Amino acid sequence: MKKSTGKVPGLAVVLVGQRKDSQTYVRNKTKACEEAGMKFVITELPDNCTEIQVCNALSSYNENPSIHGILVQLPLPQHLDEGKVLDLLRLEKDVDGFHPLNMGNLAMRGREPLFIPCTPKGCIELLLRSDVKIMGKKAVVIGRSNIVGLPASLLLQRHHATATLVHAFTKNPEQVTREADIVLTAVGVPNLVRGSWLKPGAVVIDVGTYPAEDSNNEHGYRLMGDVCYEEAVNVASAITPVPGGVGPMTIAMLLSNTLESAKRALNFA
Amino acid sequence: MKKSTGKVPGLAVVLVGQRKDSQTYVRNKTKACEEAGMKFVITELPDNCTEIQVCNALSSYNENPSIHGILVQLPLPQHLDEGKVLDLLRLEKDVDGFHPLNMGNLAMRGREPLFIPCTPKGCIELLLRSDVKIMGKKAVVIGRSNIVGLPASLLLQRHHATATLVHAFTKNPEQVTREADIVLTAVGVPNLVRGSWLKPGAVVIDVGTYPAEDSNNEHGYRLMGDVCYEEAVNVASAITPVPGGVGPMTIAMLLSNTLESAKRALNFA
Repeated sequence: MKKSTGKVPGLAVVLVGQRKDSQTYVRNKTKACEEAGMKFVITELPDNCTEIQVCNALSSYNENPSIHGILVQLPLPQHLDEGKVLDLLRLEKDVDGFHPLNMGNLAMRGREPLFIPCTPKGCIELLLRSDVKIMGKKAVVIGRSNIVGLPASLLLQRHHATATLVHAFTKNPEQVTREADIVLTAVGVPNLVRGSWLKPGAVVIDVGTYPAEDSNNEHGYRLMGDVCYEEAVNVASAITPVPGGVGPMTIAMLLSNTLESAKRALNFA
Repeated sequence: MKKSTGKVPGLAVVLVGQRKDSQTYVRNKTKACEEAGMKFVITELPDNCTEIQVCNALSSYNENPSIHGILVQLPLPQHLDEGKVLDLLRLEKDVDGFHPLNMGNLAMRGREPLFIPCTPKGCIELLLRSDVKIMGKKAVVIGRSNIVGLPASLLLQRHHATATLVHAFTKNPEQVTREADIVLTAVGVPNLVRGSWLKPGAVVIDVGTYPAEDSNNEHGYRLMGDVCYEEAVNVASAITPVPGGVGPMTIAMLLSNTLESAKRALNFA
């Protein structure tokens, strides 16, 4: 693309506040963009910034033709209205795929979303590349966040799995999960999913990332998944570790979405 | 509303072709609007009409301030692009709630759709008015149409059920369905759901409407549901009949959505 158009895909990130996990994610995204030869710009705002400051940053990236993807690192501090902020994102640059129009198109048959949210897309990619059949399988998604759980269940449905979304009000989540051929969990509660929750041979994708304090770690913490790995590894036929499992796939999909967006913007086939 | 604003809610329907079931639905909607004192207008187009004719009808209703709700009676004939047609509908008049932005807002937590699709909304209303608790219950929705199955599963999730969408690729649909406290079926296959598919005490909502030929009927056909009623009635704790179960609720919700839309348009609290 650079050779024939003289342009490279550009990704802009808006990061508000000092959350350690958010900082890690953004650091990893920066590194990946550099390695892939993409342009990367970031706006860092303090924890107590105003909605107007966030919106201004987004507007300028919306208008900037060298930026093809914009993402707002979530979660935002409580005083900012996440929905309102995300609605401002220009649809063609919403590489995270969090806009409700995009989510509707992901859910509905016969329609195509502009972007598939990166983490769910990465999970499916992992399944496909590991030759896990999705069609007709029972899939349980634990956690119904707008970022992972909800779009993951919609995407699994799109791939013709029979999907069930398990959440805080689900009775006997253990029993429901034990029915599943594919378990995808995205809650943020370490060791929530024990070995006993799994059907022998199930495929387990752990999207949980809880930052547990760890003074031995150079960043002062380490990421923990939702799954009790030591138990699950003896029951599952395949399982993703945390860290190092889904995380790198999410970033790869972010770059893939940004590249796709740049191609569309530049009419580059 | 008429007293204080001099205006009444207005509903416009676009009906393409001669499907008997569609004609029945539209006839029932006309009658309901008349009874409720709402304005009702209809554009009827022949089976072989062009997309432009449909779009022209929609555009004129979009612009007409006396029309607060527009619905395109689905399904459209094969040669018309349903998605393209529905996308033209002005969001504030999409009383069927089929626009993908509306569907996204229905799916996502922390967001509110402008309209909840009428049939799923009617089903939930039936459950609530029959004192069926939804929160924490296992719900199985059979059929994943954009009109009923998909939004019904999203709406049940919104009410904190643990929802599973069963479809053509689901293995052992009978077994999956037998786990459910609430079964909602919207497929259009008469007698698909037998008594053996149900957990004793399950609540069954039958949205199926298959027009079976019947020379004894004044319209030449009668509507059949998805559920084998005679068997199911002995197993279920509650069940809706076809016809006369969900149908009237759908129409009531359509009027309710149209009224809501008129109130918004006229700033009438």
